[in-house]
Amino acid sequence: MGKSCATWQGGLTFEIDQDGHQFIIDGPEEFGGRDLGPRPKNLVLAALIGCTGMDVVSILDKMKVRDFGLKVTAEGELTDEHPRTFSSVKVLYRFTGMDLPDSKIEKAVKLSQEQYCGVSAILSLSAELSYEIIIDEMNN
Amino acid sequence: MGKSCATWQGGLTFEIDQDGHQFIIDGPEEFGGRDLGPRPKNLVLAALIGCTGMDVVSILDKMKVRDFGLKVTAEGELTDEHPRTFSSVKVLYRFTGMDLPDSKIEKAVKLSQEQYCGVSAILSLSAELSYEIIIDEMNN
Repeated sequence: MGKSCATWQGGLTFEIDQDGHQFIIDGPEEFGGRDLGPRPKNLVLAALIGCTGMDVVSILDKMKVRDFGLKVTAEGELTDEHPRTFSSVKVLYRFTGMDLPDSKIEKAVKLSQEQYCGVSAILSLSAELSYEIIIDEMNN
Repeated sequence: MGKSCATWQGGLTFEIDQDGHQFIIDGPEEFGGRDLGPRPKNLVLAALIGCTGMDVVSILDKMKVRDFGLKVTAEGELTDEHPRTFSSVKVLYRFTGMDLPDSKIEKAVKLSQEQYCGVSAILSLSAELSYEIIIDEMNN
């Protein structure tokens, strides 16, 4: 069971209460918001990269791969028609570190995308989902 | 185009950078997290109630209905199988105020759910989505 609560604060501002944590979401100024927090629809992208990111670091931890940096980015194209959904989403995993094991990293990402990441599974029904892995080897 | 970036902070902690705002997401302690922020999958529910909540207050504003309180709550049941997605999501709109126009409120919610809310449209492909409206009339 997951749960989330949004309390209106005037304008387009809502306070979200979720998992014991509070944060503000808002609309941009050009649509009458005050930009006090992120946009709700893009939170779906944050959910996606957070969900797959946690999968990937957990799977790599089980493979004893722990000494690296990771940034996961998602870019989503929106449909023109209402209701506006993401028509395509590109996820980029950028790893940094020394002597990183490419095949384990690729396996961890693939396991998340194909078996574990629930948000990817949700989004893939409405959006064309693709991903790319970049491994930046740092010099000694 | 929507965009979101997650930077790994160790453990299961990621910092999200979205729409110029930063916030932390994390896993619960029983799964090796430090509970420094909300869970990523439940952010889909926050996206849902934020998206439809902003629709509803915007539509009611156009109908000159402005003097009310609103809490929107979502509860989602998860599947047992991986990838774990929401099998059903119940959205509750709770309005408070005096002499609230029931039919305008119902129309605003219906317009959001059926025509405007992109996150509802995304989620409805994988989850059974339902909603309820409660109007709490305050006494003078």
